[in-house]
Amino acid sequence: MKIVIAPNAFKECLSAPEAAQAILEGVVTAAPHAQCCLIPLADGGDGTVDALVSACQGEFITVTVHDPLMRPVVARYGLIDTGKTAVIEMAEASGLRLLAEQEKNPLHTTTFGTGELLLDALKHGVNQIIIGIGGSATTDLGIGMAAALGYSFLDASGNILPPIGKSLQCIQKINHSNVVPLIDTANIMVACDVKNPLLGEQGAAPVFGPQKGATPAMVNQLQDGLQNTAGCIERDLSIRIHEIPGGGAAGGLGAGLMAFCGAKIQSGFEIIAGITKLESAIKNADLVITGEGKIDHSTSFGKVPHGVAMMAKKYHVPVVALTGKSGSGIEALYENGMTAVFSIQDGPLSIEDSLIQAKSLLKNTAYQVTKLWQAKN
Amino acid sequence: MKIVIAPNAFKECLSAPEAAQAILEGVVTAAPHAQCCLIPLADGGDGTVDALVSACQGEFITVTVHDPLMRPVVARYGLIDTGKTAVIEMAEASGLRLLAEQEKNPLHTTTFGTGELLLDALKHGVNQIIIGIGGSATTDLGIGMAAALGYSFLDASGNILPPIGKSLQCIQKINHSNVVPLIDTANIMVACDVKNPLLGEQGAAPVFGPQKGATPAMVNQLQDGLQNTAGCIERDLSIRIHEIPGGGAAGGLGAGLMAFCGAKIQSGFEIIAGITKLESAIKNADLVITGEGKIDHSTSFGKVPHGVAMMAKKYHVPVVALTGKSGSGIEALYENGMTAVFSIQDGPLSIEDSLIQAKSLLKNTAYQVTKLWQAKN
Repeated sequence: MKIVIAPNAFKECLSAPEAAQAILEGVVTAAPHAQCCLIPLADGGDGTVDALVSACQGEFITVTVHDPLMRPVVARYGLIDTGKTAVIEMAEASGLRLLAEQEKNPLHTTTFGTGELLLDALKHGVNQIIIGIGGSATTDLGIGMAAALGYSFLDASGNILPPIGKSLQCIQKINHSNVVPLIDTANIMVACDVKNPLLGEQGAAPVFGPQKGATPAMVNQLQDGLQNTAGCIERDLSIRIHEIPGGGAAGGLGAGLMAFCGAKIQSGFEIIAGITKLESAIKNADLVITGEGKIDHSTSFGKVPHGVAMMAKKYHVPVVALTGKSGSGIEALYENGMTAVFSIQDGPLSIEDSLIQAKSLLKNTAYQVTKLWQAKN
Repeated sequence: MKIVIAPNAFKECLSAPEAAQAILEGVVTAAPHAQCCLIPLADGGDGTVDALVSACQGEFITVTVHDPLMRPVVARYGLIDTGKTAVIEMAEASGLRLLAEQEKNPLHTTTFGTGELLLDALKHGVNQIIIGIGGSATTDLGIGMAAALGYSFLDASGNILPPIGKSLQCIQKINHSNVVPLIDTANIMVACDVKNPLLGEQGAAPVFGPQKGATPAMVNQLQDGLQNTAGCIERDLSIRIHEIPGGGAAGGLGAGLMAFCGAKIQSGFEIIAGITKLESAIKNADLVITGEGKIDHSTSFGKVPHGVAMMAKKYHVPVVALTGKSGSGIEALYENGMTAVFSIQDGPLSIEDSLIQAKSLLKNTAYQVTKLWQAKN
């Protein structure tokens, strides 16, 4: 019996590797001779580095960079694939979680530290970089990131502007003569499941600005700045990023990575499934066990259990999802290959107790599922 | 695919027939062509009449009898097996639930109404009576029940005593010359999983007396009375009931039914499994789904899921239990044939919400189990 164990993290309680381990313990208690393949997953958001370093037996690199307000911050990224691929989460350097409530202001924040992480990875000799861009504190179109790589952004008087949100409306020229040549040595893939474009009503400023501390007036100012800088990019770098789906993610960092680094935007699940060779594992499995903290109608929009189910469906392999909370509206999930969804509680339990006991509950549910599964002839 | 659906009641929320129906709905939603056999079960306690009338397509009979304090009470029993078998719960006529807190006093209470139920059933022409004796308000050794059938209990002066607990110590002679002949026309089976004898430290008075309102002094008085009456029974009816396992159940009603009606005491699950032909259904099944409100270490002591698992193990048929609360210490259950146990919650839930939503939660869990089951080739 071959079982692929491929969960996402259980938010607020278990990382993807921890969840995979708990499921494994339940499976082997029920079926000691099962051949288990552990592939902790992620969707490009929180936990992507943890999952990939674990799934690919990689290593963590720790480096001091600059946070969104240019203060020093210790950030971590992963090296996998014998050091040839780096896995970066922008939130490590430029995340909203690094700011106090009163510090949140996308006019003043920068993705500079994310650029420093890219540069550090490039200096390690990688030829591929995967970057997850969830949880940003910024709306700078990636000019901070670009500045760390050698780009400079000039105003009408030819002065170099600080690479922060409020500079966007003042940029008149982009200088790329000092960009580090290393930038051409790696393919950069942006893991992104958001489809918002850079500009317009569904763009970076109006949709994501407020959660980063933007007032309505700031949203307008940022919107103008993004529009202005996109125009400069089109003129000076010959790349049009105005309408690209996902260009508005992470305050325009998605679009900026395309413009300044030649990056490609791709579904987080697809990138990570590719790196972890998930498909070939699933192809040969008898059963797949996936999971996530919560499974509901939104799971069908690019989340891990949905991706796993879609992939398993191709090969007619049954998939069970284990979860802390099974919500309504998951019919689409069943249609897309999900066999069954089990919530992990073993009785009436508060949210707090469910979180505290998540590891043993998950192990127990995996045990029950495996027992039932192997009981059928 | 043949599935036997054989749950007990889920206490405080679903009767056994309701639980079976909820499971059925989940099963057929997942597997519309499954052949399902519904056998709602019971263990001789609360819900035994409901379960057997439903499982055997019987009918309910309603009759006015006397409650533990000789007030009129409307009680219900079941007729199954084309009217040849009656199913009675003593608690309908003589249960503790019929008394207010201050009325609880086993010196004054009687099983007379239970005797009236037996008599009513006998008049319907049954040749078999199954009687569940849980939840009694009495410690009268069944003399109330016996009085309703024509026995009389005399004191030293030859006066007829009222058939209540405090009379037990005064009985000097048992008169059975007026017992209704109908009593010989039916086999009576007492469903009882309690092993306590009538007398001694583990007997009816010290173990069960206090919960029925007996003070320590009353316990002693009742203990003396039980001892005295058991002696009279041995002398006048030539039956020794002192040491019979289960004789102490229901304030000695178990022993009384043996002495006064020739009843046999048997495991509730075994009686009910026999009546419902559970074993032949399980023998031909691919999967059995059972359940109970709570499953824990005590489940292995004669409860429905344990009995179902033991029976299925004989025929190597997998058994899944669905429950509102899966407690610890259920290893013995696994050893005795239980394949897997799933709790029905779909996320963090309070006890109250688990009870309120029990039907849909149970249906959903049965759905998931069936989906997983049929997914395996």
